[in-house]
Amino acid sequence: MVSKLRTEDAIMMYGMKGMKRCPVDNTFKLIGKKFTVHIIRNMLNNQTRFNQLVESIEGINPKTLSIRLKEMKKNGLIDRKIYHETPIKIDYCLTEKGKALKSILDQMAAFSVQYCSKDVFEDGKPRTLRQVVQQ
Amino acid sequence: MVSKLRTEDAIMMYGMKGMKRCPVDNTFKLIGKKFTVHIIRNMLNNQTRFNQLVESIEGINPKTLSIRLKEMKKNGLIDRKIYHETPIKIDYCLTEKGKALKSILDQMAAFSVQYCSKDVFEDGKPRTLRQVVQQ
Repeated sequence: MVSKLRTEDAIMMYGMKGMKRCPVDNTFKLIGKKFTVHIIRNMLNNQTRFNQLVESIEGINPKTLSIRLKEMKKNGLIDRKIYHETPIKIDYCLTEKGKALKSILDQMAAFSVQYCSKDVFEDGKPRTLRQVVQQ
Repeated sequence: MVSKLRTEDAIMMYGMKGMKRCPVDNTFKLIGKKFTVHIIRNMLNNQTRFNQLVESIEGINPKTLSIRLKEMKKNGLIDRKIYHETPIKIDYCLTEKGKALKSILDQMAAFSVQYCSKDVFEDGKPRTLRQVVQQ
């Protein structure tokens, strides 16, 4: 009974039959774990190396980063490229699917620069994301 | 030194001085905990009662919901209205700030209906969010 109720809720929310899983929940399962959004953010800003990510994401440790990268690869969000040089070089980069997450991160940034300006800006003034990017 | 590097990264990423905190990270701190996004989703779909939320969010228990609602109230995302009837009635609803999170959830839904269609739809076919809503 409970699972039936939940299916009906999902249909009510998204206005269609034939949906077997809530798409918001599905995305949250892909990016909701601690640091996944930060890894995507840094990769969108052209970071490709393990050490770059470890050094620039506050609070992450190598073990957690390694676990997150494996999850992201399994979920099709990133590719892992190995260059057989000496020393061996490994690059991580976003797949097309991974890059498509940018619109979510943009909306996350847009929310905070407008609604949490006191936490985000030294002058505390709200801005649109466009205003921030154009500065 | 590390905190200096991180500030520079944030400036590089968002192209401006005067930013004291990454806005993506700031938003993640508000909505990244388990179930917060689901609570917002259900409130955007006009659920206002504690029992409605407990019954329709898969896997949540009353204690966790209570904790999340308190966090969300503290963060200015929801209001709690008490009606002094018998029995007493309590409604939860999104503030203007909370409602502004809709654009993030919309992008989360848009991502999954396009890029995870096999997980989301019975027929496995990708769709735009507009196509889903219009059905």
